Amino acid sequence: MSPKITTELLKQLRQVMKSPKYVQEPVQAYIVPSGDAHQSEYIAPCDCRRAFISGFDGSAGTAIVTEQHAAMWTDGRYFLQAAHQMDNNWTLMKMGLKDTPTQEDWLVSILPEGSKVGVDPFIIPADQWKRMSKALRSAGHDLVPVKENLIDTIWTDCPQRPCKPLITLDLSYTGVSWRDKIVALRSKMAERRVLWFVVTALDEVAWLFNLRGSDVEYNPVFFAYAVIGMNTIRLFIDGDRMMDPAVREHLQLDSTLEPEFKIQVMPYGSILSELQAVGAGLSPKEKVWLSDKASYALTEAIPKAYRYLTPYTPICIAKAVKNTSETEGMRRAHIKDAVALCELFNWLEKEVPKGTVTEIIAADKAEEFRSQQKDFVELSFATISSTGPNGAIIHYKPVPETNRTLSVNEIYLLDSGAQYKDGTTDVTRTMHFGTPSAYEKECFTYVLKGHIAVSAAIFPNGTKGHLLDSFARSALWDCGLDYLHGTGHGVGSFLNVHEGPCGISYKTFADEPLEAGMIVSDEPGYYEDGSFGIRIENVVLVIPAETKYNFKNRGSLTFEPLTLVPIQTKMIDVNLLTQKECNWVDDYHQKCREVIGAELERQGRHEALQWLIRETEPLVRVQ
Amino acid sequence: MSPKITTELLKQLRQVMKSPKYVQEPVQAYIVPSGDAHQSEYIAPCDCRRAFISGFDGSAGTAIVTEQHAAMWTDGRYFLQAAHQMDNNWTLMKMGLKDTPTQEDWLVSILPEGSKVGVDPFIIPADQWKRMSKALRSAGHDLVPVKENLIDTIWTDCPQRPCKPLITLDLSYTGVSWRDKIVALRSKMAERRVLWFVVTALDEVAWLFNLRGSDVEYNPVFFAYAVIGMNTIRLFIDGDRMMDPAVREHLQLDSTLEPEFKIQVMPYGSILSELQAVGAGLSPKEKVWLSDKASYALTEAIPKAYRYLTPYTPICIAKAVKNTSETEGMRRAHIKDAVALCELFNWLEKEVPKGTVTEIIAADKAEEFRSQQKDFVELSFATISSTGPNGAIIHYKPVPETNRTLSVNEIYLLDSGAQYKDGTTDVTRTMHFGTPSAYEKECFTYVLKGHIAVSAAIFPNGTKGHLLDSFARSALWDCGLDYLHGTGHGVGSFLNVHEGPCGISYKTFADEPLEAGMIVSDEPGYYEDGSFGIRIENVVLVIPAETKYNFKNRGSLTFEPLTLVPIQTKMIDVNLLTQKECNWVDDYHQKCREVIGAELERQGRHEALQWLIRETEPLVRVQ
Repeated sequence: MSPKITTELLKQLRQVMKSPKYVQEPVQAYIVPSGDAHQSEYIAPCDCRRAFISGFDGSAGTAIVTEQHAAMWTDGRYFLQAAHQMDNNWTLMKMGLKDTPTQEDWLVSILPEGSKVGVDPFIIPADQWKRMSKALRSAGHDLVPVKENLIDTIWTDCPQRPCKPLITLDLSYTGVSWRDKIVALRSKMAERRVLWFVVTALDEVAWLFNLRGSDVEYNPVFFAYAVIGMNTIRLFIDGDRMMDPAVREHLQLDSTLEPEFKIQVMPYGSILSELQAVGAGLSPKEKVWLSDKASYALTEAIPKAYRYLTPYTPICIAKAVKNTSETEGMRRAHIKDAVALCELFNWLEKEVPKGTVTEIIAADKAEEFRSQQKDFVELSFATISSTGPNGAIIHYKPVPETNRTLSVNEIYLLDSGAQYKDGTTDVTRTMHFGTPSAYEKECFTYVLKGHIAVSAAIFPNGTKGHLLDSFARSALWDCGLDYLHGTGHGVGSFLNVHEGPCGISYKTFADEPLEAGMIVSDEPGYYEDGSFGIRIENVVLVIPAETKYNFKNRGSLTFEPLTLVPIQTKMIDVNLLTQKECNWVDDYHQKCREVIGAELERQGRHEALQWLIRETEPLVRVQ
Repeated sequence: MSPKITTELLKQLRQVMKSPKYVQEPVQAYIVPSGDAHQSEYIAPCDCRRAFISGFDGSAGTAIVTEQHAAMWTDGRYFLQAAHQMDNNWTLMKMGLKDTPTQEDWLVSILPEGSKVGVDPFIIPADQWKRMSKALRSAGHDLVPVKENLIDTIWTDCPQRPCKPLITLDLSYTGVSWRDKIVALRSKMAERRVLWFVVTALDEVAWLFNLRGSDVEYNPVFFAYAVIGMNTIRLFIDGDRMMDPAVREHLQLDSTLEPEFKIQVMPYGSILSELQAVGAGLSPKEKVWLSDKASYALTEAIPKAYRYLTPYTPICIAKAVKNTSETEGMRRAHIKDAVALCELFNWLEKEVPKGTVTEIIAADKAEEFRSQQKDFVELSFATISSTGPNGAIIHYKPVPETNRTLSVNEIYLLDSGAQYKDGTTDVTRTMHFGTPSAYEKECFTYVLKGHIAVSAAIFPNGTKGHLLDSFARSALWDCGLDYLHGTGHGVGSFLNVHEGPCGISYKTFADEPLEAGMIVSDEPGYYEDGSFGIRIENVVLVIPAETKYNFKNRGSLTFEPLTLVPIQTKMIDVNLLTQKECNWVDDYHQKCREVIGAELERQGRHEALQWLIRETEPLVRVQ
């Protein structure tokens, strides 16, 4: 990796920062955040502005350019990568280290008195604007919105914003029609006495209208906004995709409908002016509901007194609770996904000893097997295929420079998943194709104990996921081991592989309580820097539990694994497991054998079936 | 309990709410919060203004009086008590129920347009003022500070503010002189670049100066404020207690000292004007550090630009980490406390079958035995002595109307503690003096498993206590049982029995990480309404742990019980315990026998020693 040469680009940017063509007054600093106008985790190439200006293309990072300086804030996952990708015009600001200043403090320390700091108001979330604006103002500076994105003005070969065809999902996949979703949303709006709801997150638009797209890699979403009134529906979307007869039919664009279900299609770019018109027409006590993470531009379109902001939108919360059609779809997707992984692991077992399988080859092979499955759409994230020391890099993605050959001497960690039309998968298995050391088995077994502790946990209705995080760590902690990431995230239903508002992590407190129908991952791990990585991840469904006393009728919950892929017993030190934990593993493997075995049989994949049967033998305690 | 008749009082209050003598403009509503000017949990009789105006004397509740209405907000612990104690002038607002409006919403719904809502600015914490003021303003009303407390103007027989003599604590108790504490505080101030620190919490003033008082029952504190500058120390305190030669000597008031350690003693009531003078004299970038829970009056004395507010003060954090002298003192206090409880339980075992021991008699007897111990000062909270169904009332305190006789047929729960000059105790034991039922034993054993899970937990340095809360619940959850309170609170060293900034609770997220030297309680429970209550509470010290892999040198922590009182083995269903849990109980009892046994021997308490030996026999597994 050689760094991107940015001298000329920075010169150009500094020019437009002073150009009356783009800014009312010169700005002394310009902030380039990571995200897009929808605060997406994954973004399209046209939105990779920070990568364009700096060369650093990690998933998180904020660039700030002033007349004299160019600085990049990123976190520990990316210190090395950012240092490699950026030339010496740039100062790396290592977040989380004690001496690293915040963006605000740094700006205050270097700016001349009374400076203007510019930012694209469509890219910065309202809550972040508020914090930064306050800090700058109290030091005598001003945060100002710069309407035209200054990076776009110098990015001559900027890719087009994608505008790919849409997929319509019928009731057999979604369980609820978009009309019924609108009705439910309006009833939530009535409850909170708001007249308008603005849908800004891409997965929320897709979920609401039972549509999917492919504008962003790995995430089946499309660029759009929606504004839902009590009697109107406005969808802001570009391109001729609304000409597709299937989409027109699905949205009933040409039918005679009750007016309150008539969708008005408007250009993507007109959202701001339309929202401003809504804002201007409000009477006292009429409110507009937005996520508090919506962009500053859209939030400002509504006068402050009329805004109703919440951290989680009613769509985010409704989307998280899967209905029967969705959970059945997720089950089917996970069965197909397990078939592909049985094929892969069977193939690896034969090929790895030959010394010809690299991390990239293994990842490609996994994709090949998945793509053979019905309704496969694409992967759900970049496959983490890592062997030996690469396994300790939690967000590793093999590239030619780091690509390592799998061997019988190293642990192999595969964290991968796919989008199927009926569901989204995300699974991690850690395998050894030779003989693991006692220490590797010991660590693996602690991680497994943590995985089981969460998966088998029983807890009262109303419990938030973060309260379960320590269960995943207890066995590791007893021996002085830990892992520095959360234990689980929400998973969409043929949608984003990471979604809110629930999860299992020590890092959050504002998660919504778990309820039956929610789907999260359970993925504790252990990482030995320079040596190996271990993670065991299932996607699990929250289901009602049966308990002896049932929490005074409050009801109780537990998890059911949707992922049904064997956990390598060779890696388990059985004597470290309790009888209950042994039973959990044996029951889990029995279920894998039954459910996935039947599907392998049906698909005529006999060799993989034999592998599955071998890998799901009951544990044997060696005393 | 008959309700207090408040018709005349409310009439008087409504008059002064309009009287130009007390208010610049009439106020349409007046708020009477629960606390005192120091945001204390326990308050002196002169501060029980809400109890005076309403009759309701629970520990939490806010009264609001308007021209037409009088309403009281309190939580589930007090619904019954408040209903009994208040006459029908009052509307009870049951917090936590879905249909109960917040104070702000209720005010907005009933006030005429453009109303003024008054409150004593010394009693309302700044963060609460901010929230309420914002809500009222956005509805067109104003929250206004009323300097003279309106309750005090009509409270003709209001008790005097206590002004009792002080106790000086020498180095053998405190480990650090007040001068060194000032030096450490100033270094924290320099780190944050603040010039002044305002000490508003009573226990923080007491800790800083190594003084104790008895102005508030159960809490060895005294009414005072302090303002610490980089070169000045101002102590705001009333009465002739500063004339006491021991206090003068301790504070070196008559010595020739370096000026930066010279304490200026000022009247308690002059804090506001002195602070206003400090505020008026500040230059740009000079800051004043306050708790964000300090009163609105004191916070407002410092112009906004000069305030530095934090949820935990540096004193709060320093106070929580006990030094060797303090932990040794706490150990001594807990040994004495255990001696008293061995005597008590031995006495109860003989007396209860006679049917003559009531909850009040048992509580008095506990106090009697404690008062025989060296350096006993007072109880650390009102003894919870409860049998049978009373045990299910978590904050129960026996009064003649509810006083129940202990019997061999009911579970007895005793939650009690004391202030000794060398430390503060807080211990709960649940005993049966006859034969417990299988169900009672089952519940007790789950609670015990939770208690052990926390007490024996190993966790990495930097872990916050709230991450351990679920460990205490896991065994209960497995069977569909739970308890609706936190698992532990910080404990002061001859100071308040409840103190921040650490604890073990699902309810908080902003607690400070646990570190070696901190002291917390470990007190899971289970409550069967109308039937019994179970709680097992030890005070535990955070200590370094030994682990196999030591968290990559991050270090690890665990707990050591300071409380050494037998846990009744008769209540344990041994077959529900793992071998590890059995060993924990046996080791704990062995330690009780050795440490407390030696002290009982030394004090010649032979009968109690025999009881201790009987109660600390190893567990026997009946297969």
